[in-house]
Amino acid sequence: MLSSQAAVVLNLVGIFAFSLSGALLALRQGYDVVGMAVLATVTALGGGMLRDVLLGVRVAALDHPWWLLLPLGATLVAFFFHPAVTRLRRAVEVVDAVGLGLFCVTGTLKALQLGAGPVPAVLLGSITGVAGGLVRDVLARETPTLFRPDSRLYAVPAVVGCALLVLLAQAGVTSDVVGVGAAALICGVRLLALWRGWTAPVPRESRLR
Amino acid sequence: MLSSQAAVVLNLVGIFAFSLSGALLALRQGYDVVGMAVLATVTALGGGMLRDVLLGVRVAALDHPWWLLLPLGATLVAFFFHPAVTRLRRAVEVVDAVGLGLFCVTGTLKALQLGAGPVPAVLLGSITGVAGGLVRDVLARETPTLFRPDSRLYAVPAVVGCALLVLLAQAGVTSDVVGVGAAALICGVRLLALWRGWTAPVPRESRLR
Amino acid sequence: MLSSQAAVVLNLVGIFAFSLSGALLALRQGYDVVGMAVLATVTALGGGMLRDVLLGVRVAALDHPWWLLLPLGATLVAFFFHPAVTRLRRAVEVVDAVGLGLFCVTGTLKALQLGAGPVPAVLLGSITGVAGGLVRDVLARETPTLFRPDSRLYAVPAVVGCALLVLLAQAGVTSDVVGVGAAALICGVRLLALWRGWTAPVPRESRLR
Repeated sequence: MLSSQAAVVLNLVGIFAFSLSGALLALRQGYDVVGMAVLATVTALGGGMLRDVLLGVRVAALDHPWWLLLPLGATLVAFFFHPAVTRLRRAVEVVDAVGLGLFCVTGTLKALQLGAGPVPAVLLGSITGVAGGLVRDVLARETPTLFRPDSRLYAVPAVVGCALLVLLAQAGVTSDVVGVGAAALICGVRLLALWRGWTAPVPRESRLR
Repeated sequence: MLSSQAAVVLNLVGIFAFSLSGALLALRQGYDVVGMAVLATVTALGGGMLRDVLLGVRVAALDHPWWLLLPLGATLVAFFFHPAVTRLRRAVEVVDAVGLGLFCVTGTLKALQLGAGPVPAVLLGSITGVAGGLVRDVLARETPTLFRPDSRLYAVPAVVGCALLVLLAQAGVTSDVVGVGAAALICGVRLLALWRGWTAPVPRESRLR
Repeated sequence: MLSSQAAVVLNLVGIFAFSLSGALLALRQGYDVVGMAVLATVTALGGGMLRDVLLGVRVAALDHPWWLLLPLGATLVAFFFHPAVTRLRRAVEVVDAVGLGLFCVTGTLKALQLGAGPVPAVLLGSITGVAGGLVRDVLARETPTLFRPDSRLYAVPAVVGCALLVLLAQAGVTSDVVGVGAAALICGVRLLALWRGWTAPVPRESRLR
């Protein structure tokens, strides 16, 4: 019970952190408040929306008004206090890592519940975590952070964590502890990647052609 | 009855105006006729498609062949008569405002009919009106007009009109007059914004960081 | 029976060719392996995904794990052997044309099976063939090949082939031979366009405005 309430709160925290990253990018691009609100919403909810759309079900956010209002709240915070928020970018990145872990786990579990096989479940879980940021970058006409050779590992821990969760579920091991563990793993590897500068492999001489 | 027929005609007029704005952008980018047809279709139908996809239902345009053919008609008009159409850009903007009002209202009403709560209904109504233009700009690799600090109010009247419609529906007030009134309000504020140069707020010094 | 097995194999070949074109574009942009995998997947599966999403059904790829793994295989091939793959770009283009024909035909037939009318079926068939490449270009921040006035005919043979297939289906003519014929027509016209340099029409003086 407590664990379930904690998950709800952490989920809202993740949505808020993702929203802030969207609103801050809008700010750096010089967009108006509409651009901030759209990028905040898309970053926070885009991944889960894409997961549900691919599964052919009604998007969960439509039945959770608070998920829709929170990005607007983050937009207002970024609008009025952006110098402070920008200074706290490190903290935003940490909270974003927490959101990444949670979104991947909840996305994987929802996919499994809706009858997805192991491979699709890993894909849908990872999409829940990373697709919002990808759409954010595309709307803001930036090279997707996800693709940049100098960006710190983000999709890799997501895929690994989702795969581990699916493997354990296949082995019949499903408990809150497993879910929390997978989320902590994703979050931890992401934070380590930020701290140690880990990047994804790049093909040799790819820049030359 | 008459009112319903008028709505059908106005809807087609809105689709045509949105299509023209897509085809004209393709023209300015130097795209070929395929680019014109794709941008016309996406601009006119993208908002409603996204609404239906988020709601998890089959996209309405698939059951209305004329909605699919009209953007091709607008493409042909823009292809052969583009100097004239470009000169009439002002008129296209006015008809686009009519389309914006209508799309927002029909989108909000459809969302409510499909059981969306008040907050999601406002979101889905606004998406119906503005998302097509957003996708148009992204495909054409332009800074989304919706986000530009110098663009005239577009999403703001959409959200306000949809919210008013939802509030009245919550209060039990639903009639054709209310729908027409909300559409007229959105259209009117958009036209006033064009005329008086109203823009959305921008955070202070956001351009400096 | 044999014909159905052949279709399955050809479909996988098409997915692999589309995946390679996505991974190669990622390579040219200097993306890391995550970018390669995402672009490979989106190029290969994006068209069919969009078709299913518009139809309001669960995306078929989610129930075909091999379709999801094949783009990762193509990513590995491109990652380790990209000089060879780049040299074979001509061959990739030919296989891509085969994939285009197959995807259009399977997409059109699925749309008809799900009750789409003739006009939507042509649209959905064409989307199945061409939309993946469009999303690939948008994610990679390139002018969509589909829109470029110097690009060889791609969407045009797709639309013509899908329309022919729908017309024959309307006339009650549905057989494997018809499907194979339509796919061969699309593939053949695409290859001729590559060989003879056929491009889509561009409006007069569009570059001047």
